Amino acid sequence: MEKETGRVEAFSDGVFAIAITLLVIDLKIPHPSDSDTLASNLFGQWPMFVAFLNSFVTILIIWMNHHNLFGHISRINPLFMLLNGLLLLCVTFLPFPTSLVAEYYGHSGQGSAAILYSGTFLLMAFAFNLLWRYASHKHRLLGKNITAAQVRSINRQYIVGPVFYGLAFILAFVQVTTSLLLIIALAIFYAVTASRSVW
Amino acid sequence: MEKETGRVEAFSDGVFAIAITLLVIDLKIPHPSDSDTLASNLFGQWPMFVAFLNSFVTILIIWMNHHNLFGHISRINPLFMLLNGLLLLCVTFLPFPTSLVAEYYGHSGQGSAAILYSGTFLLMAFAFNLLWRYASHKHRLLGKNITAAQVRSINRQYIVGPVFYGLAFILAFVQVTTSLLLIIALAIFYAVTASRSVW
Amino acid sequence: MEKETGRVEAFSDGVFAIAITLLVIDLKIPHPSDSDTLASNLFGQWPMFVAFLNSFVTILIIWMNHHNLFGHISRINPLFMLLNGLLLLCVTFLPFPTSLVAEYYGHSGQGSAAILYSGTFLLMAFAFNLLWRYASHKHRLLGKNITAAQVRSINRQYIVGPVFYGLAFILAFVQVTTSLLLIIALAIFYAVTASRSVW
Amino acid sequence: MEKETGRVEAFSDGVFAIAITLLVIDLKIPHPSDSDTLASNLFGQWPMFVAFLNSFVTILIIWMNHHNLFGHISRINPLFMLLNGLLLLCVTFLPFPTSLVAEYYGHSGQGSAAILYSGTFLLMAFAFNLLWRYASHKHRLLGKNITAAQVRSINRQYIVGPVFYGLAFILAFVQVTTSLLLIIALAIFYAVTASRSVW
Repeated sequence: MEKETGRVEAFSDGVFAIAITLLVIDLKIPHPSDSDTLASNLFGQWPMFVAFLNSFVTILIIWMNHHNLFGHISRINPLFMLLNGLLLLCVTFLPFPTSLVAEYYGHSGQGSAAILYSGTFLLMAFAFNLLWRYASHKHRLLGKNITAAQVRSINRQYIVGPVFYGLAFILAFVQVTTSLLLIIALAIFYAVTASRSVW
Repeated sequence: MEKETGRVEAFSDGVFAIAITLLVIDLKIPHPSDSDTLASNLFGQWPMFVAFLNSFVTILIIWMNHHNLFGHISRINPLFMLLNGLLLLCVTFLPFPTSLVAEYYGHSGQGSAAILYSGTFLLMAFAFNLLWRYASHKHRLLGKNITAAQVRSINRQYIVGPVFYGLAFILAFVQVTTSLLLIIALAIFYAVTASRSVW
Repeated sequence: MEKETGRVEAFSDGVFAIAITLLVIDLKIPHPSDSDTLASNLFGQWPMFVAFLNSFVTILIIWMNHHNLFGHISRINPLFMLLNGLLLLCVTFLPFPTSLVAEYYGHSGQGSAAILYSGTFLLMAFAFNLLWRYASHKHRLLGKNITAAQVRSINRQYIVGPVFYGLAFILAFVQVTTSLLLIIALAIFYAVTASRSVW
Repeated sequence: MEKETGRVEAFSDGVFAIAITLLVIDLKIPHPSDSDTLASNLFGQWPMFVAFLNSFVTILIIWMNHHNLFGHISRINPLFMLLNGLLLLCVTFLPFPTSLVAEYYGHSGQGSAAILYSGTFLLMAFAFNLLWRYASHKHRLLGKNITAAQVRSINRQYIVGPVFYGLAFILAFVQVTTSLLLIIALAIFYAVTASRSVW
C-alpha cells in the first residue's frame, strides 16, 4: 500500500525552514579590540555574510525545486522516504561547512573548508537527482499528468547540478576563490532560472 | 500553471515560528563577578530584554500581515516565491542585529548596531511592499473578492513601513536612542492598529 | 470578516514545537577537571536536568490545553492573535529562566533565578486565562456546541494556574526550594489531570 | 469525545524536524593550533561526524515508524498524547548524549557518555512500545482496517528495539566501542528493513 505525500512534504518543509533559519546562529557577534571599531570589524567579516546569503539562497531554491518535484509525485514508498532523508541530511549539514568557509576564507585551512562546502553541495545535487530518478524511473511514483518527454526534459535540467558542483569540488583543491565564485554563480543562475520558469 | 498557496504559507509559517523562537537563544545567561548580584546584573541587561521584546513583537506583526496578505492571494508563481524568500531572509537575519543592539547599546559601536538594526527593518518593509506590489499589480495573483479600491487602500497603509523605518535608519547615524525609540514606537503602533483592525 | 483558525494553530504549534526542542540547547556539555569524572559531574548537574524536564512537561501540557482551547473556538480576530502572541512570548522566553535556575540553583543568585522562573510561569498562566476569557466572553469567538455552563466550568479550572503560580512567585522571594517544588508539583498535577480528562 | 489525530501529528513532525536539524548545532568548528591543519583536525573529529550521522538516521527512522503508527490510529486521547510526549522527550534530548559521545569517545569519560547515549535509545524504544501497546490494546485507538493478527505481528517487530538497545546499554558499562557499534548496526538494520518494507 502506498501512502499519500502530505506528511513527508510537511516534515521536509519543517527541516528546510529550520535549516534556513539556523544559518543565522553561526553569524558571530564581533568583539572588536580597542584599536578597532564595530563597523570595520563587521565589514571585515564579509565572507561570513556572503556565505550566509549564499547558503540561504541555495536552500530556498532547493526547497522550491523540492516543492516542484512533489508536484509531479502522486505516492511515496519507504525507499523514497530514505532518499528524501539523504537530501535532508545534506540540507541540515549545510550550516556546518557554511561556518567553516565563513571563518577560514582568507586564512590557512580555506582549502579544506571549500572542499567540504562544495562537497556538501555536490552530495546534495546527487541526492536530489537520485530522489528524482528513483521516483520517475518507469513512472514509479509519478502522477498520470506528466509525460515521458517531460520526465526526460527534467532529467536533462537536473544534470546541471552534479556537473557544476562537481567542477566546483575539483576547483576547491586548486583554486579556492574560483570554486566559491562558481558556487555563488550557480545560486544566482538557479534563482534567475527559477524566477523565469513557468510551472 | 499556477500552484496553490498552501505549502508556501506552511514554509513561511515555519520560518516565522523558528525566527521568533530563536530570539531567546541570544539572551545570554549572566555570570556576575563577586561584587555584583545576579539581580542587578539582569537589570543592567535591560537593553537585551527590550531588543528581544521589540523583535518578537515585530516578527509577530509581520506574520499577522503576511497572513492577511495571503488571504488576498489566490495563486503564486516562482518570482513571488523568491520575493517571499527575500522577506524571509530579513526575518531570519533579524536575531543577529537584535543581538548587536542588545550587546552594544550604551557602548562604543552602538551606532553601527543601530544602523544594522534599523536597516534590517527598512529592508524588511521594502521586501513586504515589493511582495504585495508584485502580487497586486494588475491583480496579478489576487483573488476575485478584492477590489481595486481595496488594493489602493492597502498600498497606502503599507507606505508607513518604508517611510518610518527609513527615518529610523537615517536617525541611527546621528541619534541612536531616538532611532531605537522610533522603531519601538512603530512596533507599538502596528500592534495597536492590528488589534483594532477589522478583517 | 473573521478568519478560520487553521494557520494560527499551525504557527502556534510551530512555536511550541521549537520552544520545547530548544530547551536541550541549554544542556551544557560538562568539562570536568582532572580530579573529577564525567559521571560525577553529570550527577552534580541534576538541577539542569530537573529544570529541563519540568519545562518540557509544562510546555507539553500548555500545548495540550492550547489544543483543547482551539477545539472550542470557531473563529479568530486580530486582538485574539495578539493575546495568543503574548502566550507564545512566555513560551519562547521560558528556556532563558530555565537556564538561569539550572545554573544558579544552590548558588548565590538562586533567588533571582527562581523569581524570574516562577514569574514567567505566572505570566504564562495569566496570558492563557486572558486568551480564554477574551474568546469566551459573551461567546465572542466560541463555537455553538459549547454551553455557558461548560464555559463557567473551564473558567473555574483555569483559576488554578494564576493562584498557584502566584503562590510560587511569592515563595520565590523567601523559600526558593519550596517555590521550585511547588512549580514541579503543578506540572505533575497538570499531567495527571490531563491524562484522566475526558474530552 | 475523541479528537482527530491531525494536530498531534503536526506537532510531533515539528519536534522531529527540529530535533533532527538541531543536531548540526553541536558540530563544533575546529580551531586548530599552529602545528595542526584544519583538514587533519576535521579528520580527527570523526567520532563527532559518526555520532551526528547515527543520530540523524535514527531520528529519521523513528519518524518514519511514527508516521506508520499514526497510519493505524484513528483517534487519540489525553494519555496517548502524554505517552507521545514521552517519546518526543527522548527525541529532543538525543542531541545532548550525541554531543557527549562525540566529545568523549576515545577519552576518559567515554563510558558515562556511552551509557547515557544507549540509555536514551533504550528509553526511546520503551516509549515507542508503550505508545503502540497503549493504542493497540483491545484496539483502543486503532482504525477498523487493521486486524488482530497484524497487531501481533507489529508487537513482535517492535520487540527488537528494547532488546538490542538494552544489550547496547549493558555493553556500555563494559565495552564502549562494541556498544556504540551495536547502536550503529541497529540504525543500519532499521534503515535497510524500512527501505524493503511494504506498507
